[in-house]
Amino acid sequence: MTNRLSAQMAFLVEADRLKTVLRGTTLNDGSRRENSGEHSWHIALYAMVLAEHSTRPINIDRVIKMLLIHDLVEIDAGDNPIHGDHDPAEMETIEQAAADRLFGLLPTEQARDFRALWDEFEAAETDDAVFAKSIDRVQPVVANLESGGGTWPAYNVTQQQLETRVGVKVRRGAPALWDHLSGRIADWFKSNAI
Amino acid sequence: MTNRLSAQMAFLVEADRLKTVLRGTTLNDGSRRENSGEHSWHIALYAMVLAEHSTRPINIDRVIKMLLIHDLVEIDAGDNPIHGDHDPAEMETIEQAAADRLFGLLPTEQARDFRALWDEFEAAETDDAVFAKSIDRVQPVVANLESGGGTWPAYNVTQQQLETRVGVKVRRGAPALWDHLSGRIADWFKSNAI
Repeated sequence: MTNRLSAQMAFLVEADRLKTVLRGTTLNDGSRRENSGEHSWHIALYAMVLAEHSTRPINIDRVIKMLLIHDLVEIDAGDNPIHGDHDPAEMETIEQAAADRLFGLLPTEQARDFRALWDEFEAAETDDAVFAKSIDRVQPVVANLESGGGTWPAYNVTQQQLETRVGVKVRRGAPALWDHLSGRIADWFKSNAI
Repeated sequence: MTNRLSAQMAFLVEADRLKTVLRGTTLNDGSRRENSGEHSWHIALYAMVLAEHSTRPINIDRVIKMLLIHDLVEIDAGDNPIHGDHDPAEMETIEQAAADRLFGLLPTEQARDFRALWDEFEAAETDDAVFAKSIDRVQPVVANLESGGGTWPAYNVTQQQLETRVGVKVRRGAPALWDHLSGRIADWFKSNAI
């Protein structure tokens, strides 16, 4: 029991560092960059509120757990903004090593369960993972719209790139969310054309 | 559908402000004060990892949801550190009004469900709520221990006060967690006696 709890506490103490990983997007008020800890909270809440908009049958409790752990690897690997330039293969190697180390802090069978949930999220094949990915992708778009375009100008994002990199993934799990935002997105790009 | 989704999005946009509410404790590394958004993520993860240490039968999925929404009222009411001085009756009035406004942004039946879950957490009577409270109380203690005492000196907290205000509540739902930390707590107060 003591060894188990020590291992669990070591994991939770290490997890604290996710609060120092800064993302490509800002808070809705634009005051500062968002960190991956508070982002993880916000998208878990997004999933809880928006579950009914999944077009596939989902287990919302699994989706929430997936979203709570989905970014932990960034403690070692850092955040990689979707509109940034990084080598996907290299990133995957780094994130796999991060997952080995971080989930490996937990007691054996718990480490295996958490890792399986993270692998499922990454693979984006099951209904739960597809919806989780939709939620993870849509929240930064709302943050950018709320903060007057947010970090889109800094990354020179075009409306077409936003559709390809983000819209397609949001639509896969929850098309109603993308439809809901599409008018505001079109307006923003019309007003801010380069 | 559109009205429903607009209401849900308005709630999620408003929730973003929880990331700007600063708490009495710091990150584990002591670098800055923790905000209530990232705190809510961390304790949801704590609950997910430590569920087995509840002495009562719990539904961990309900506990996690409870913890994701438990601090939202702070958007209007602010954070009230457990070792700070505030009038509990006055605070309750303010938090009830905050709950009316914030959960009231959601579609009617969803507002009712979220409010019921928050009321249950606040009442701290059901097994799920008792465990959720234990988790909410234990995480700042770990943060204080990790950061060399954290904000205990600033609040002039004695070991006895920590036992009465925090230990009792952690023990109620998950005594193993308090037992696990008690040696480190005793050591800290021995080394830092006023």
